[in-house]
Amino acid sequence: MSTLKKALADNAKAVGGVLDELLVIGDGPESRVVEAMRYTALSGGKRIRPFMVTASAKLFNVDVDAALRVAAAVEFIHCYSLIHDDLPAMDNDDLRRGKPTCHIQFDEATAILAGDALLTKAFEVLADEATHGNSAIRVELITALAKASGDAGMVGGQMLDLYAEDHALQMPEITRLQRMKTGALIAVSCEMGAILGHASEKACHALHAYAHDVGLAFQIADDLLDVEGDEKEVGKKTGKDAAAGKATFVSLLGLERAREQAELLVDQAASHLDIFEEKANLLKDLAHFVVHRNT
Amino acid sequence: MSTLKKALADNAKAVGGVLDELLVIGDGPESRVVEAMRYTALSGGKRIRPFMVTASAKLFNVDVDAALRVAAAVEFIHCYSLIHDDLPAMDNDDLRRGKPTCHIQFDEATAILAGDALLTKAFEVLADEATHGNSAIRVELITALAKASGDAGMVGGQMLDLYAEDHALQMPEITRLQRMKTGALIAVSCEMGAILGHASEKACHALHAYAHDVGLAFQIADDLLDVEGDEKEVGKKTGKDAAAGKATFVSLLGLERAREQAELLVDQAASHLDIFEEKANLLKDLAHFVVHRNT
Repeated sequence: MSTLKKALADNAKAVGGVLDELLVIGDGPESRVVEAMRYTALSGGKRIRPFMVTASAKLFNVDVDAALRVAAAVEFIHCYSLIHDDLPAMDNDDLRRGKPTCHIQFDEATAILAGDALLTKAFEVLADEATHGNSAIRVELITALAKASGDAGMVGGQMLDLYAEDHALQMPEITRLQRMKTGALIAVSCEMGAILGHASEKACHALHAYAHDVGLAFQIADDLLDVEGDEKEVGKKTGKDAAAGKATFVSLLGLERAREQAELLVDQAASHLDIFEEKANLLKDLAHFVVHRNT
Repeated sequence: MSTLKKALADNAKAVGGVLDELLVIGDGPESRVVEAMRYTALSGGKRIRPFMVTASAKLFNVDVDAALRVAAAVEFIHCYSLIHDDLPAMDNDDLRRGKPTCHIQFDEATAILAGDALLTKAFEVLADEATHGNSAIRVELITALAKASGDAGMVGGQMLDLYAEDHALQMPEITRLQRMKTGALIAVSCEMGAILGHASEKACHALHAYAHDVGLAFQIADDLLDVEGDEKEVGKKTGKDAAAGKATFVSLLGLERAREQAELLVDQAASHLDIFEEKANLLKDLAHFVVHRNT
């Protein structure tokens, strides 16, 4: 197993442990919503965003437990967005990470509530002094995550994605859509590590540039998987964009150029981290992994 | 106009102004989600929860602008819960405050996203230093609001409400359901004023007891309106609980005893505030108003 794969697996296990601890099933019948939260949050996944939090935090020698709790908060946001995105009124997906989606396994109402509760929990975790002793750092983390995931970030990107169903977007618009929809949460994952680490402006800037390029590369890889991926391997339905007639990086650039563009972006992403020298090797490897994954 | 009615109207106007400022429509097509947020958040309503924030903050001479921003955050949570609660998969309501509900006016996907973005915005506003100069106070506000609105509070209560559709609940369970579903957000509205005001333990305790009783009285009044209210006047569908065969305070106690119970609760609520002397008159009047409203 490569160093990166081992680091990803170790991180996924550690983050999973924190998520497990944070989602406590109570006695009453309302605990069904916690079961639904756990169903999605503990269903595996590569935990790429949490890895970005912990790996960027490591650049600044941040306390591991603090980084893991912040990583869990980011994963809560990611999981809530998956649950709501899969709903019949949104993407109407039955399959996610190779398992029935939350509203199929439970029901639509429970899935809506589970998403809401995960979103709320993310901020509760960040506000907790167990995450960081300094409240100024905690509000900075909360502000960054809220901005990245709200109407000016991820949710705005999802709104654009719905708009794209009826409108033929061109490259600048698709790029903006993806920066908001997937890029913002990826970027903030790296930013959280920098906030925890009281990083210099130069370091923040480098991480931001890295995250921006990785985010786009990640999305191009996603578009490629939707065209070329095997449904069983990918763990979710493929061929959806073409079926919906949606413009993507692949439909606009073609397979060949999309692949080249993704490679170019990951090289560029890695080069932004040169200032951290060998400490950034895992994040550099991650950039390449993101493009070459098959799930 | 009574002193309370004037104070409620003034507060509603001031909070509406803050909500308006916080929900800025941008240029891109994603601004549709902000339009949906504004549609619900600026659609009027009595702004009872925001009033509880500002009125409880006034007990401790808190800066008015700070209290109004916190009140706006609470209203964002309330509005998101209305939007998601009205969805077809939840209560499936077409009418709210006398207007089409968000998913009728826009569409289901936009309504889901608008709810998500309002929920996120609540925490963004609280984390902002424009709300309060002290970050320790801001994280305390965030923690209180997250706990009250998440799976151990409002969302848990909504889960119980769904459970109640297929299970005949008795008084202790109905009371618990309502404490979580509506009581938690009402209680935290008063708590926020206390947090902003660095209130003594005794003052916090009094406000908490007040909010607890008002919350239950509020719900009994809601149940009574569902039975006796005029749909046009109430501004939303009535007779829903009976149609769904749901147990409520009214179905378990009968109209007469439910009315008596509500009166008893508001008298008790008001008495908890005696320690604040005449400064608490508006909150005492509010308790009575909550039970005697007809919308």
